[in-house]
Amino acid sequence: MFRIAICAPATPIRSEDAARVEGLARAEFPDLQLDFHPQCFADGGHFAGPDAMRLGALLACANSAADAVWFAKGGYGSNRIVAQVVEALAGREGKQQWLGYSDCGYLLSAAHKHGFARSIYGPMPVDIRREGGDDAIRRALGWFAGHREGLEPNLDGRPTVAFNLITLAMLCGTRFLPDLTGYVVMVEEVAEHLYAIDRLFFHVTEHLRGIAGLRLGRLSAIPENDRPFGTEPEDVVRDWCERAGIPYLGRADIGHDAANRIVPFGPFGQAQDRLA
Amino acid sequence: MFRIAICAPATPIRSEDAARVEGLARAEFPDLQLDFHPQCFADGGHFAGPDAMRLGALLACANSAADAVWFAKGGYGSNRIVAQVVEALAGREGKQQWLGYSDCGYLLSAAHKHGFARSIYGPMPVDIRREGGDDAIRRALGWFAGHREGLEPNLDGRPTVAFNLITLAMLCGTRFLPDLTGYVVMVEEVAEHLYAIDRLFFHVTEHLRGIAGLRLGRLSAIPENDRPFGTEPEDVVRDWCERAGIPYLGRADIGHDAANRIVPFGPFGQAQDRLA
Repeated sequence: MFRIAICAPATPIRSEDAARVEGLARAEFPDLQLDFHPQCFADGGHFAGPDAMRLGALLACANSAADAVWFAKGGYGSNRIVAQVVEALAGREGKQQWLGYSDCGYLLSAAHKHGFARSIYGPMPVDIRREGGDDAIRRALGWFAGHREGLEPNLDGRPTVAFNLITLAMLCGTRFLPDLTGYVVMVEEVAEHLYAIDRLFFHVTEHLRGIAGLRLGRLSAIPENDRPFGTEPEDVVRDWCERAGIPYLGRADIGHDAANRIVPFGPFGQAQDRLA
Repeated sequence: MFRIAICAPATPIRSEDAARVEGLARAEFPDLQLDFHPQCFADGGHFAGPDAMRLGALLACANSAADAVWFAKGGYGSNRIVAQVVEALAGREGKQQWLGYSDCGYLLSAAHKHGFARSIYGPMPVDIRREGGDDAIRRALGWFAGHREGLEPNLDGRPTVAFNLITLAMLCGTRFLPDLTGYVVMVEEVAEHLYAIDRLFFHVTEHLRGIAGLRLGRLSAIPENDRPFGTEPEDVVRDWCERAGIPYLGRADIGHDAANRIVPFGPFGQAQDRLA
């Protein structure tokens, strides 16, 4: 039995969505045991409960016998507890897997930096709500069950991380981001204006000099501006990479959508050996 | 005669607005000579002309005999030329004043860091379009004319900078931000969701440990979110300051509005001596 503890470090999910994920797991992945922490459904205004409740649930999951902690949903809020998570867990051996994306990137980043969990970018329970969301859930559950076909197809043996762009931008220069020298960095974004994306790449490329290269995931739901930005999204990224001397490596198969693939943080060959 | 060269490092202004500013200056400030560079009115898609044109106009103004360079408008784009500005001007003596705010903070920051101009946060020609905008323009022109009543009233002799919050966030950790240890940092923001403001304060307070303190200008036009954030804006700032051990010093009289006051970068007593 592979045990998966689920909590919501940012915003809550609905119990009916959790039930659908549980049903799919029961039907197709009998060797996985899912345990949704009640905090997943807490409604504390903007967040899935106050900071202390979200922190408590995450630490309860982390300190349980679970083989993996699965983040239920992003939104906004996991940066508000990341310092306390580091304080509580830094120094422990990191065999437990943590899986999620979007706003939960703050936690994946800190866990990878301090080594208290194995960080994995990938689909979350909330993705069941998307069109084709069952496949996203199958991809995450398949990963937990030991399958490898959900992996991002461009992983090439070099250490890799994947982030939502604004999450990475807010992590840059803080004590929660690992030294990414020599890493391939994959980024994706949703619902940001193209000028704001341009601005974020100004910031992150200033911080990421020395990485092995950058790969661009999907930039989806870009709002219409009052006037066109005048540059294609991929050219924005090429431009900032060139200015910073960062190799632009092409696209990555990640994004805020049901096709979002799995990226284990770190050198993948090594992660595969450890995790398979 | 005090000569003011005006260019637009980000987005363009309209010639009729420039004419109104010129009319006001002629009528009330006969010792000021305003020179709007034609690039101020260039329309190159999202920007006031391509990067090369905006850079060329700024360097033409900077290298002219002008006593001050006045930025016409913010918007977005001055970060796209700031590296080239530094390359062109670093090392020169900084007697020339540069005045602006919002997106132009990238240039003020770099100029203050390298000392190639005296950076001053304050109203820009585009502010003539605001209700009460004439007074904003009078405040900037009055500053150039040697008056001091437009100064932000909380300047206390300690070195100070003022920034739009997202501009400061994008500068953090880059080679364009001076070491702000011991500085009072004033910030203001416009048209950002409260959760995004919270996220930006997470980022900037991580970077600003060691400053003398933070003052909060106006957070205006905060969009309605799908659910209330649940914390008052000033409490957001107090919270992040407390977490980072940064003294919260109270409000600042700055913002994206006609009441926006003037903040000379650096220790003000010293700036006053130099500039008066």
